[in-house]
Amino acid sequence: MESLFRIFTVPEAPDSTLGQIEKHLSENLEDFLSSHIVAQERPLHEIEQDFADSTIPEQPEFVSSHTETLLKKLVAQSVHTASPRFIGHMTSALPYFLLPLAKLMVGLNQNLVKIETSKAFTPLERNVLGMLHHLVYGENEAFYHRWMHNAEYSLGAFCSGGTIANISALWVARNNLLAPRKGFAGVGAEGLAAGLSHYGYNRLVILVSERGHYSLGKAADVLGIGRQNIVTVATDENNRIRVDALRKAAADVTASGGRVLAIVGIAGTTETGHIDPLQAMAEIAKEYRAHFHVDAAWGGATLMSSTHRPLLAGIELADSVTIDAHKQMYVPMGAGMVLFKDPGLVNAIEHHAEYIIRRGSKDLGSHTMEGSRPGMAMLVYSALHVMGRRGYELLIDTSIKKAKYFAELIDRQDDFEVITHPELCLLTYRYVPFGLKAQLPHASHEQIKEMTPLLNTLTRYIQKTQRENGRSFVSRTKLTPAQYGHEGSVVFRTVLANPLTTETMLQEIIAEQRELASHAKNLMQQIKTTAEHCGLLVQEPSAL
Amino acid sequence: MESLFRIFTVPEAPDSTLGQIEKHLSENLEDFLSSHIVAQERPLHEIEQDFADSTIPEQPEFVSSHTETLLKKLVAQSVHTASPRFIGHMTSALPYFLLPLAKLMVGLNQNLVKIETSKAFTPLERNVLGMLHHLVYGENEAFYHRWMHNAEYSLGAFCSGGTIANISALWVARNNLLAPRKGFAGVGAEGLAAGLSHYGYNRLVILVSERGHYSLGKAADVLGIGRQNIVTVATDENNRIRVDALRKAAADVTASGGRVLAIVGIAGTTETGHIDPLQAMAEIAKEYRAHFHVDAAWGGATLMSSTHRPLLAGIELADSVTIDAHKQMYVPMGAGMVLFKDPGLVNAIEHHAEYIIRRGSKDLGSHTMEGSRPGMAMLVYSALHVMGRRGYELLIDTSIKKAKYFAELIDRQDDFEVITHPELCLLTYRYVPFGLKAQLPHASHEQIKEMTPLLNTLTRYIQKTQRENGRSFVSRTKLTPAQYGHEGSVVFRTVLANPLTTETMLQEIIAEQRELASHAKNLMQQIKTTAEHCGLLVQEPSAL
Repeated sequence: MESLFRIFTVPEAPDSTLGQIEKHLSENLEDFLSSHIVAQERPLHEIEQDFADSTIPEQPEFVSSHTETLLKKLVAQSVHTASPRFIGHMTSALPYFLLPLAKLMVGLNQNLVKIETSKAFTPLERNVLGMLHHLVYGENEAFYHRWMHNAEYSLGAFCSGGTIANISALWVARNNLLAPRKGFAGVGAEGLAAGLSHYGYNRLVILVSERGHYSLGKAADVLGIGRQNIVTVATDENNRIRVDALRKAAADVTASGGRVLAIVGIAGTTETGHIDPLQAMAEIAKEYRAHFHVDAAWGGATLMSSTHRPLLAGIELADSVTIDAHKQMYVPMGAGMVLFKDPGLVNAIEHHAEYIIRRGSKDLGSHTMEGSRPGMAMLVYSALHVMGRRGYELLIDTSIKKAKYFAELIDRQDDFEVITHPELCLLTYRYVPFGLKAQLPHASHEQIKEMTPLLNTLTRYIQKTQRENGRSFVSRTKLTPAQYGHEGSVVFRTVLANPLTTETMLQEIIAEQRELASHAKNLMQQIKTTAEHCGLLVQEPSAL
Repeated sequence: MESLFRIFTVPEAPDSTLGQIEKHLSENLEDFLSSHIVAQERPLHEIEQDFADSTIPEQPEFVSSHTETLLKKLVAQSVHTASPRFIGHMTSALPYFLLPLAKLMVGLNQNLVKIETSKAFTPLERNVLGMLHHLVYGENEAFYHRWMHNAEYSLGAFCSGGTIANISALWVARNNLLAPRKGFAGVGAEGLAAGLSHYGYNRLVILVSERGHYSLGKAADVLGIGRQNIVTVATDENNRIRVDALRKAAADVTASGGRVLAIVGIAGTTETGHIDPLQAMAEIAKEYRAHFHVDAAWGGATLMSSTHRPLLAGIELADSVTIDAHKQMYVPMGAGMVLFKDPGLVNAIEHHAEYIIRRGSKDLGSHTMEGSRPGMAMLVYSALHVMGRRGYELLIDTSIKKAKYFAELIDRQDDFEVITHPELCLLTYRYVPFGLKAQLPHASHEQIKEMTPLLNTLTRYIQKTQRENGRSFVSRTKLTPAQYGHEGSVVFRTVLANPLTTETMLQEIIAEQRELASHAKNLMQQIKTTAEHCGLLVQEPSAL
């Protein structure tokens, strides 16, 4: 009992056992973070053996011995998301100063659902939402003075990530569209079937490009709208929604008795980093009195760069915007936000209880999808202050420049081709051996259909093997490139957000990929034979 | 540029600037956590002045100077949720060993949506879900061997907290009820209106006691079911759902063309800590082929106590169970879980994408409501190992014993009365001066109606003033106690989960409340006059 109490008591000295464990952990973390590999290869089924016991341990264990187990079984088998050679996903390096601050945040253990368990964290979170709102919408000082700390309104909502942010935005849109009025208590109260019937719509529809994030499908499912009522609109050769196709889709929905609930623009697609023509989309949304949501989970931070901000022109017309601080704002996992242009919009999802979030209170929980939540806003606040807008600008400009360098590097190779060029710091590419790079752009659709499955297999093989080798990591996805007749093509996908990634590393990454391809002898032979068979001219590597 | 890169680079020595800042922060945190006050009183509108600037700072700031600002403006104005005198909410002290581990977890910055950004964290999380599943359902070893790490199935889902857990459970229930079948692609695909119409129900209904958590209303709203279709069922004198009333409600719903989607049992109501008769509820759920969900966000951890586990008998019959590790499992904020009895149940919300959570992958994101998520499961894993089942048992038994002591202490006072007795470690009570304690139980409904508003005002006043004084904190809520004709009564609400709360502290807390009441002279006079006026016998404090 005594020893159990002790673990809840402040450890007295830095040379206490816990102090020493902390030091040991910090050193280990630093070793891990500065190591040059991306992952130690060990098959998942082997790791699963270390996590196979389904019984809660009966007896307590010393922190020191447990820590050793963790370091060996967990940390050593984690992914080095901070490695500069980990350029495959949107999870990147963190600025080091956030780690002690994160410990502080966790230690304070505030719960932001209500003032009584968060006090100053509540105005801080509202402040961060205000800063991001200002970044997007640029309202004047009087606006923020009036709304930022106003109990009855909200400039946005914090949440664990972009998915909840997107769901929240569409929830708000749905409840505002099917709002209470005479004879109807609102969709929130009466439900969706009653709402549709009262308003006389046969369905609600969300329009988004075919590059939209999968969380939108989830949102349509959760909200009762139905995944089939996400109408995906075709994109142009740059993965941007085709405005003409969008206009037609909206007209079709309306003509068939449906109602366009929302049009969703993407500012930085997850797969290719492209940005939809937001301004034109906003106009169509206005025409159809639809909610205009912009999913800027990735791209939102770009607004801090004077150079690249114009790419997002029109975002200020959005009714709501999703931004993830744990993506391009370099904050640890778990910091999503949705911003609302009109501070009264969120009242459509307002809720109260007797013991907290009472009417008129400033409790943040009255306008969020989640209930109890940690004070992640503090880390966003600190990151914004310590790096400043200019710091972010430098980071973002550098990332985009690096992506452009990488695209040029790939262009210069005889056996790699860029599939989507970078607009933000994302690009996709693939390996195309035997001089096919020069020929594929002129190939017939039949030839493309012959070759693509084999190239897909090769890309998959290279990506998996490179990941398993653990020196570097790019991800992969499947696109339908316009230049290849919209044939489903597997590509390498890279996100160049780590400031420590160098040009040399990028050169090494494609060198390794070329090397890996050469090991896949059977597959390479098959590609060669098929190419010849379908009439493409094949070159030996030596001839290149 | 150089200095910007440096912040992403591992600091070299413990005596580096960042090392020193970290030390300073740790000391400050320790000071804060060991201080005896609950909150420094400073009006919120003053604190808001510190967070009033809506512009993102243009220039970077030194970490050292930013840290000082944070300590002064934020930390000093936070709530001491770890204080043993903070007994008002479910946010409590943390075991200290979790802090360095939390820093490690944040530093690793894994993203659990997919294996490629989480590797060993994925089996670890599945392991934790397995352990909790085992705690609830106690299946045999073969069961866990078969399902725990199976890519196509899931024993549950991690999430940021109980609200998302409850929404997820009801989402799964909704999609399983209105499942795909011939001529219908399922509610997830076609939407709720189509689902109701296809299956021929006029509405879906969720049945829960009037003590159900407010997140269930939110779930009904989000899921398109409608808040009006949460039918709240009356409770008995111990805040447990009345089984006869539940049975009648289910029959009424069905008779009127509705369909009982789910029956929700509560294992530890948020306001009073009572546990519904789960076994009986499970039977009714079975009878109506309704999903049986148990919201054990608070009470779930009680299963680790051999003494008190029987209170939750019947939980093993639930189709799904919510447990919050950041409540009675003493893990930092942000660790919710929903468990599913049948590992195939979650397939009703399965979703995929091309670049992650591909079909057949072990990516956890295919079965969760959230997308990108931090590795909070690690902290649950560590807490379970370091404290062990026996450690938790001791903590839980001690808390309940302490709550029973506090109830007896209040019972012994002449001017305090217990409103709800503790079943878990929660209880509610209020201050009743002038010997009214002895008389109210025999008072007429008219007399109760006269007195209650005044007693409510007094309770509110005491609670707010005590909070503002900052030495200790109890919360308040409004109940409808059976013993007082279901009149809406404001009560003090306490959660006695902090192991360091002593009996002396509890004595001091009610002494302070009595003292505060005596300062409210006008109100006290009004209570006295009204009591006399409506025929209740009044005693002077001195006579007690």
